[in-house]
Amino acid sequence: MAHRIAVLGASGYTGAELVRLIALHPNMEITALSGERKAGMSMAEVFPHLRHLDLPRLTRIEEIDFAQVDLCFCALPHKTSQEVIRDLPAGLKIIDLSADFRLRDPKEYRKWYGNPHAALDQQEEAVYGLTEFYREEIRAARLVAGTGCNAATGQYALRPLISAGVIGLDRIILDLKCGVSGAGRSLRENLLHAELSEGYNAYAVGGTHRHLGEFDQEFSALAGREVRVQFTPHLVPANRGILATVYVEGAAEAIHDAFRAAYADEPFLQVLPLGETPSTHHVRGSNFVHVGVVGDRIEGRAIVIVALDNLTKGSSGQALQNANLMLGEKETEALMMPPLFP
Amino acid sequence: MAHRIAVLGASGYTGAELVRLIALHPNMEITALSGERKAGMSMAEVFPHLRHLDLPRLTRIEEIDFAQVDLCFCALPHKTSQEVIRDLPAGLKIIDLSADFRLRDPKEYRKWYGNPHAALDQQEEAVYGLTEFYREEIRAARLVAGTGCNAATGQYALRPLISAGVIGLDRIILDLKCGVSGAGRSLRENLLHAELSEGYNAYAVGGTHRHLGEFDQEFSALAGREVRVQFTPHLVPANRGILATVYVEGAAEAIHDAFRAAYADEPFLQVLPLGETPSTHHVRGSNFVHVGVVGDRIEGRAIVIVALDNLTKGSSGQALQNANLMLGEKETEALMMPPLFP
Amino acid sequence: MAHRIAVLGASGYTGAELVRLIALHPNMEITALSGERKAGMSMAEVFPHLRHLDLPRLTRIEEIDFAQVDLCFCALPHKTSQEVIRDLPAGLKIIDLSADFRLRDPKEYRKWYGNPHAALDQQEEAVYGLTEFYREEIRAARLVAGTGCNAATGQYALRPLISAGVIGLDRIILDLKCGVSGAGRSLRENLLHAELSEGYNAYAVGGTHRHLGEFDQEFSALAGREVRVQFTPHLVPANRGILATVYVEGAAEAIHDAFRAAYADEPFLQVLPLGETPSTHHVRGSNFVHVGVVGDRIEGRAIVIVALDNLTKGSSGQALQNANLMLGEKETEALMMPPLFP
Amino acid sequence: MAHRIAVLGASGYTGAELVRLIALHPNMEITALSGERKAGMSMAEVFPHLRHLDLPRLTRIEEIDFAQVDLCFCALPHKTSQEVIRDLPAGLKIIDLSADFRLRDPKEYRKWYGNPHAALDQQEEAVYGLTEFYREEIRAARLVAGTGCNAATGQYALRPLISAGVIGLDRIILDLKCGVSGAGRSLRENLLHAELSEGYNAYAVGGTHRHLGEFDQEFSALAGREVRVQFTPHLVPANRGILATVYVEGAAEAIHDAFRAAYADEPFLQVLPLGETPSTHHVRGSNFVHVGVVGDRIEGRAIVIVALDNLTKGSSGQALQNANLMLGEKETEALMMPPLFP
Repeated sequence: MAHRIAVLGASGYTGAELVRLIALHPNMEITALSGERKAGMSMAEVFPHLRHLDLPRLTRIEEIDFAQVDLCFCALPHKTSQEVIRDLPAGLKIIDLSADFRLRDPKEYRKWYGNPHAALDQQEEAVYGLTEFYREEIRAARLVAGTGCNAATGQYALRPLISAGVIGLDRIILDLKCGVSGAGRSLRENLLHAELSEGYNAYAVGGTHRHLGEFDQEFSALAGREVRVQFTPHLVPANRGILATVYVEGAAEAIHDAFRAAYADEPFLQVLPLGETPSTHHVRGSNFVHVGVVGDRIEGRAIVIVALDNLTKGSSGQALQNANLMLGEKETEALMMPPLFP
Repeated sequence: MAHRIAVLGASGYTGAELVRLIALHPNMEITALSGERKAGMSMAEVFPHLRHLDLPRLTRIEEIDFAQVDLCFCALPHKTSQEVIRDLPAGLKIIDLSADFRLRDPKEYRKWYGNPHAALDQQEEAVYGLTEFYREEIRAARLVAGTGCNAATGQYALRPLISAGVIGLDRIILDLKCGVSGAGRSLRENLLHAELSEGYNAYAVGGTHRHLGEFDQEFSALAGREVRVQFTPHLVPANRGILATVYVEGAAEAIHDAFRAAYADEPFLQVLPLGETPSTHHVRGSNFVHVGVVGDRIEGRAIVIVALDNLTKGSSGQALQNANLMLGEKETEALMMPPLFP
Repeated sequence: MAHRIAVLGASGYTGAELVRLIALHPNMEITALSGERKAGMSMAEVFPHLRHLDLPRLTRIEEIDFAQVDLCFCALPHKTSQEVIRDLPAGLKIIDLSADFRLRDPKEYRKWYGNPHAALDQQEEAVYGLTEFYREEIRAARLVAGTGCNAATGQYALRPLISAGVIGLDRIILDLKCGVSGAGRSLRENLLHAELSEGYNAYAVGGTHRHLGEFDQEFSALAGREVRVQFTPHLVPANRGILATVYVEGAAEAIHDAFRAAYADEPFLQVLPLGETPSTHHVRGSNFVHVGVVGDRIEGRAIVIVALDNLTKGSSGQALQNANLMLGEKETEALMMPPLFP
Repeated sequence: MAHRIAVLGASGYTGAELVRLIALHPNMEITALSGERKAGMSMAEVFPHLRHLDLPRLTRIEEIDFAQVDLCFCALPHKTSQEVIRDLPAGLKIIDLSADFRLRDPKEYRKWYGNPHAALDQQEEAVYGLTEFYREEIRAARLVAGTGCNAATGQYALRPLISAGVIGLDRIILDLKCGVSGAGRSLRENLLHAELSEGYNAYAVGGTHRHLGEFDQEFSALAGREVRVQFTPHLVPANRGILATVYVEGAAEAIHDAFRAAYADEPFLQVLPLGETPSTHHVRGSNFVHVGVVGDRIEGRAIVIVALDNLTKGSSGQALQNANLMLGEKETEALMMPPLFP
């Protein structure tokens, strides 16, 4: 019998992406979809590209009978998410796509997000959802915290290098170029086509982006010492994609070897030949991650470049990959579709 | 055992799209890929988005052992295609994506394409590949001629109406807006990003586009009299998609009824509620077709709008749908992926 | 001494476009800018591309001393515009860019816009601002009503043909492709980059777009009989530009001759050689209009294609051209900049 | 009397941009245009956006009577350029937009460009064309070498800081995001709309981009010691624009002060308030440069972000600015047009 799946927040992009992916899963069935402001509407009205699917109407969360749900994806805004999840049945398997359960230290949460955490028990219970590095914990988890899309990208670029000790830890710079869907379906002037197309800019410059909380937590834990990176995101006129250009101190060959060792058996992580670099064009709509390494002309420095699709591997694809683990399905189920190009 | 599949012309967009789709087919295996100018290269080099797949290298056509092939997709340029297909084994199942076998009358072929046809026997044998209207012939065919992408779009908009006799035949106008991948991977100035993005234009204005040959042939046969339509294609700054805005004389309700009757059981054709119109955004990367009908303020006139993805339903998806029929597979196999949005 | 210019509604796109153009006018000085919701902000904050200009801050309209203003551009939303203009000093020269004074018949206004007109005296006084066809009236006018951008485009394609009697009047179809800036700086989901880029769609299908009111008024007056056209606008992923593909009954040569005669001395109207067609790429950011004519393969039918920039010639450039006339300046002053390509 | 201007290589983007700008210059007249492969064609055929201008036809270079030319812009490919310029009249004022005369050391030229230099006398004579820093030399020059567009951007971000001694010199990283017109009108697969739109990637990673030769030369001369920077360009789906994100060691306030001091009287350089950052949207089509500074959360590090239009300020606008100096015109003549937004 198919696992019964609920998606809360199905009127946003990560919710729609979940529906797109689950549509091809042989053992999952979507039995509930919520969308507060669009409750009562069909998905065909909210997302006409899903018109051909037989889906439940959008409802309010309180209308859902969670006793009939096996796993719940929560694609709500942060802060709302913690309040909703706090009140869900204690035995329900949950994958949260918001920022609410990513940081283990409530003080760090408050520092980056501004509000005190409203679901401390769940926060303590939550497993960080970066599949390749928390696979066994996720398999056993009840509540998984999906990572930030930028945070995932940066960690794919750096975790194996920190673990292998092949780079310096004090001068890491992550320059990220992000597609606009990462900002969600928000009605903001700078996200209008007329404002965004044909130009690009940095934002949250100087160390203010909230995904830094994840970098600080994860890299410091991994290194066994405090690690602080520089991170500048840029908004680029494309709908999907994150390209991380990461400047590190270390030898390109050793770095490349570390990646090949770490990702050898990973189904979604593709390490390019040394000297080649990836493009977001070639991961669009897929769960794949392309990783490239190049040595700089300056001895002892290298550039690592990672490309993924923020909505798929950076968010909803990761979530489905985790759900597969939590439900005893094949990890790659419904996730092997090739990228869409052109 | 999986059907053994060859793709000739795999270094172009329709070839790559075939590989993308077949990758998810449980009963097909790609055993040969050709690409004359790129022979010897891996698909990862030619199309890095297919990097994760285990695929044969590109070869020259003459290197392929067609005795080991069950079905051959031919995604070569027209004129080349007829010469290649003429010399393939007589029993080999073939789906041609070029224009070479679409027109049944050699004189018409010569009129639109300029050269005499070099494979008249095969031309006579070929079945026109518009699946929904030639399904049984395709199931029994050895050689299927994939339709033009514009020709498919226009026919989805008009065939049920001509058959049902609900529109006038003398003043049909098709105004098409096409994404750039329809032009293929050709190195032409007007296809450069710098020339194409942020602007748009008509081309082949006045009845010179070759897909008119298909319209003339199919609509006239269907109507039992000569039908000549007006057709203006436009190049729009998007990679995929065709939107046909079709101006007809007739009553919107009768037109809508004719579509609902004709497409009721079709898995890929979605008729929108009367008065709603589709967008290419909502079919991208999929095999679905969205059809909308609106009555004009002028009595007795209506507008039909059809959206599809030129590379999928307009070309490679159609080809795979036909291959499924020819090989006894489920018609929708590997074709039910939802569109990619955003 | 420079003419003192006010721009009301300077926080929208047509307002910003006016400022861009006026910046290069040797005899105009912007002395007041209004923007209700952004009052108090500098233009550098609202439109950073105007950062280098020395401009007044945005204010509320009531803060402006109109005694110190020689000409006022009004780039406010329709309905608001009529209320504001009704209360402006009776002697002030005004160019309104809204829809409020385009329709001469108050009943037509109410039919298309839904509300009764609140400034009937001014409506009666207003001159329709299609420069090339109302030049002398505009020169003498106090209040000029800027045309709709689609309405301007369609009229450039049809007025000379109706006047010359070279086309049939009963089966005119205008299929328009419009850039997104025509929708203004509105926060609507379908105008987001993620929703709009890489796809396109028709809207206001079937004769419901308000610019039809202008077509009905102008074409009927010109023909001396009722003329009703079909008009379908499409939203295309580009920021600027309108391309009108107009289907008419008539002989291409006679049509081309009519254009050449009508536009021979017009500085901004460029008639292409017969058989050539224009592109919005080649008018972007300019006040130029490109007009092409092609005969169809069907005897007696032709296609007229017109390209212009909706924000410049379709709106703010037209307004400045009219202002030049009203102030005794050279008509082309500050408007001869070539298009921006690529 | 107007200066008589020739543009060699007028069928490329920098050539067309020169024509666009010169069209508005009151004291310049274009008297010759060359384009080898398109000789004999009109500019309206090669660049329809210039259709309204009265321009000479494209010719071959040898057809030009340089005795009738006051200043010659040379927008030819590198290597060709040096051979042409070597043979031009010795007294002719020349502005070269290629890379051929940027590097003073012939060995460096050969290292970066692969061929020995064929015009060593002219190379020695050439003045580096970064106007703000070589103004007096340019005024007196006969031959000016236009800078690389990336090289200009990086120098606007770093020269005042190196001069003021407010940053460390050993760990400078320039991460550049470039619009596609920087690659010229070249027919390359990766420049096709279908390949480029909706995705982005780094290229020339690791210190292989030729503009590094300019950085090495200029920064080392300025610092009085060898300076080697890291530089990674990225290709972004936009036609115009360069955004440089520059990572430096230094105090943000001191850096901001250095910029304000250096650029206080510069007409085209706009220093944003400390903490604000620019966007390429807001310089498009203009000669303006926007400079922003932000301090990082890590003490002692700052990020400098510079935006300009590669075709205007990065190339043809710079060239015209230099021509104004060389011809005794006002430096800003024909260059004050505001950016085009949206």
